[in-house]
Amino acid sequence: MTFDLLITNAAQLVTVASGGARVKTGADMRELGVIEDGAVGVKDGRIAFVGSADEVDFEDAERTINAIGKTVLPGFVDAHTHLVFAGARENEFARRIAGATYAEIAAAGGGIATTVRATREARPVDLVESALHRLDSCLGFGATTVEIKSGYGLDLESEIMLLEVIRELQALHVVEIAPTFLGAHTIPPEYRERRTEYVDLVVDRMLPEVTSRALAESCDVFVEKTAFTIDEGRRILAAAKARGLAVRIHADQITANGGAELAAELGALSADHLDHASDAALALLRASGAVAVLLPGVSLFLGEPMPDARRFIDAGLPVAVATDMNPGSCMSENLQLMMSLAAMQMRMTMEETITAVTLNAAAALGRSDRIGSIETGKQADLLVFDTPNYARILYHFGVNHLNAIVKKGAVVFEKHYANA
Amino acid sequence: MTFDLLITNAAQLVTVASGGARVKTGADMRELGVIEDGAVGVKDGRIAFVGSADEVDFEDAERTINAIGKTVLPGFVDAHTHLVFAGARENEFARRIAGATYAEIAAAGGGIATTVRATREARPVDLVESALHRLDSCLGFGATTVEIKSGYGLDLESEIMLLEVIRELQALHVVEIAPTFLGAHTIPPEYRERRTEYVDLVVDRMLPEVTSRALAESCDVFVEKTAFTIDEGRRILAAAKARGLAVRIHADQITANGGAELAAELGALSADHLDHASDAALALLRASGAVAVLLPGVSLFLGEPMPDARRFIDAGLPVAVATDMNPGSCMSENLQLMMSLAAMQMRMTMEETITAVTLNAAAALGRSDRIGSIETGKQADLLVFDTPNYARILYHFGVNHLNAIVKKGAVVFEKHYANA
Repeated sequence: MTFDLLITNAAQLVTVASGGARVKTGADMRELGVIEDGAVGVKDGRIAFVGSADEVDFEDAERTINAIGKTVLPGFVDAHTHLVFAGARENEFARRIAGATYAEIAAAGGGIATTVRATREARPVDLVESALHRLDSCLGFGATTVEIKSGYGLDLESEIMLLEVIRELQALHVVEIAPTFLGAHTIPPEYRERRTEYVDLVVDRMLPEVTSRALAESCDVFVEKTAFTIDEGRRILAAAKARGLAVRIHADQITANGGAELAAELGALSADHLDHASDAALALLRASGAVAVLLPGVSLFLGEPMPDARRFIDAGLPVAVATDMNPGSCMSENLQLMMSLAAMQMRMTMEETITAVTLNAAAALGRSDRIGSIETGKQADLLVFDTPNYARILYHFGVNHLNAIVKKGAVVFEKHYANA
Repeated sequence: MTFDLLITNAAQLVTVASGGARVKTGADMRELGVIEDGAVGVKDGRIAFVGSADEVDFEDAERTINAIGKTVLPGFVDAHTHLVFAGARENEFARRIAGATYAEIAAAGGGIATTVRATREARPVDLVESALHRLDSCLGFGATTVEIKSGYGLDLESEIMLLEVIRELQALHVVEIAPTFLGAHTIPPEYRERRTEYVDLVVDRMLPEVTSRALAESCDVFVEKTAFTIDEGRRILAAAKARGLAVRIHADQITANGGAELAAELGALSADHLDHASDAALALLRASGAVAVLLPGVSLFLGEPMPDARRFIDAGLPVAVATDMNPGSCMSENLQLMMSLAAMQMRMTMEETITAVTLNAAAALGRSDRIGSIETGKQADLLVFDTPNYARILYHFGVNHLNAIVKKGAVVFEKHYANA
């Protein structure tokens, strides 16, 4: 057989193979299916061979990457970002360093509202341009699939515009995008005294437009004291579900507020943040099959305690780790760094962390049948790292270890050495 | 006047000018001397002009960097690293995630001893090669001057070999190196039952060889329960001082043990770590003029609480921030990330943090008369960042924002755009 691309002689080929399982939980999260001296063959954008380097020859392929001394992993999946926005919020960052809390800044009209003002005023072409740079950055750290939420528009026109921008990004960028409608990110200032009218707007005007034009795959709601109540969240998400969207929730980030329970009730694809979710809520979530998306970069950025990942894994939940890239609570596209944080600060083993940014993150986007592991028949999204083992990627932190990136079988990045 | 190099139109030129002061303390740490629409001219490797872009023309220079929309800073100084070593310690990292403490791992024969075994067995040429890669990484994140300690040899021959490797690195690499003798890093296993003999070896055999061959500028001792006592530290450092070396101390990292007081007593150039230093010790340190070198990456890596930088700054100490790059407690060369950590986790303002990796870090190496700020007559070590302001560098974290690097007037890195 002739491959279009062969990556061979990898010191470690980390397959994260699940044998068809949608997610990994518990001890399975620590089973990475590592093949030493491994090879992966690609044909027509799909993985056609996974095995030992002994079993293949360079001559079998149109193009070969010699991964000797290197480590090969599935393309990473960043399952939670808000990367389409205008304006930056360094000033707010400075205010937080000086002692203001995220909640205080939001109450004073800062926070999300600042970005909403800037985003509404921005030209779509400028939003596309800045988001393309951020997607470059995501990809540069290994994310070959990225979820992007709307949510800085918060009126019909602006939310639709943001989802159109996301669609345009998909036309322009090699990274695969999972678009999420987050019209219920926060109550916009002009609706503060008539919040039910805003929920009406989301349910009666925005959702029909989003679904009739297929602008999103899922719908998210920020359920929190400072944002939407459980009842409001239920109304919006039930409507979204009825229109065929998958459901996800920003749940229990700042307070335990029933967001995780609602995610379980609605059969959400993911429940995100979850810093303050109760044990009872985690048990419900587990039964529901939702993926718990943890976001260590937010805790670091805000100077808050990290979520206790062991609690989630020991409760049997499939855990994913993502960046939450956004201008207010985690201004970073670096998923490799989030992996190091998960290991250093959330006590996740390195194996669990790798599962959390591959198979389980793909499951959080409803895509783990197609991406998230290196298995025959799956899409050829592959990363080659300049490290002799997978552990080094997390251990040697803050440094980008990528040597090559393959998306749908195409080599979209390769490091070149002058003296090679 | 014709400049060899002109960097002009900078959105912000951050000079960190001190007007001749060796360090900045207190509120002065927040005075960055920012010039908007600024320019810096270089002649014969030194800074010949600092001012407004209005005052200079492109024609004035052999070569010009148009820094429009960008931010220019002094070259960063990484004042604390151990970057010459063999072997990596991912396994230990995994054990810590599983619950073992750094002290437990050291007590079980791991920790520094692991790296000492690997380093003693390594060929010097291999140590040079791996360290050159690390220096590339340091430079790539903006460190144009790097302190490097010996300390993984711990016998006469190996410690001298390490300092020779460091000398070789200086011959091969554009980064300026400040070499430190750290023969007293820990008691080597073979001397555990006869520690005084090891101190004798350091004082009577190693130090004379180090100083007669001018292999180091300063001498460091790890004063800690698990390493050297105050009396041992005093004996070694007093001998080093008598031989003309500057003094620095790994002080109060794990316990309050008098290390900071000893640093003050001996007039140390720097006292490093200091996580557990008492207020009384800080007052003594302040009077002594020592620079407090804080290392947030270590706290992150080990999952320990961050040092409380406000306590140091409010006590009037000149604070520096460094990586501590080493295989056991901070495997990272990324000084930009340490800056973000300082702001996010140590409550240092962004201005303080920038002073801490420029002027004050230069002072920790006794070089602030020559580097650490952008002032006429100083060495032209300059960084150009792809950000419209200095705050963005820290706020948009985990992402390398460097656009160009100038060392001693030479452009040693410049990002190229295909479509420029």
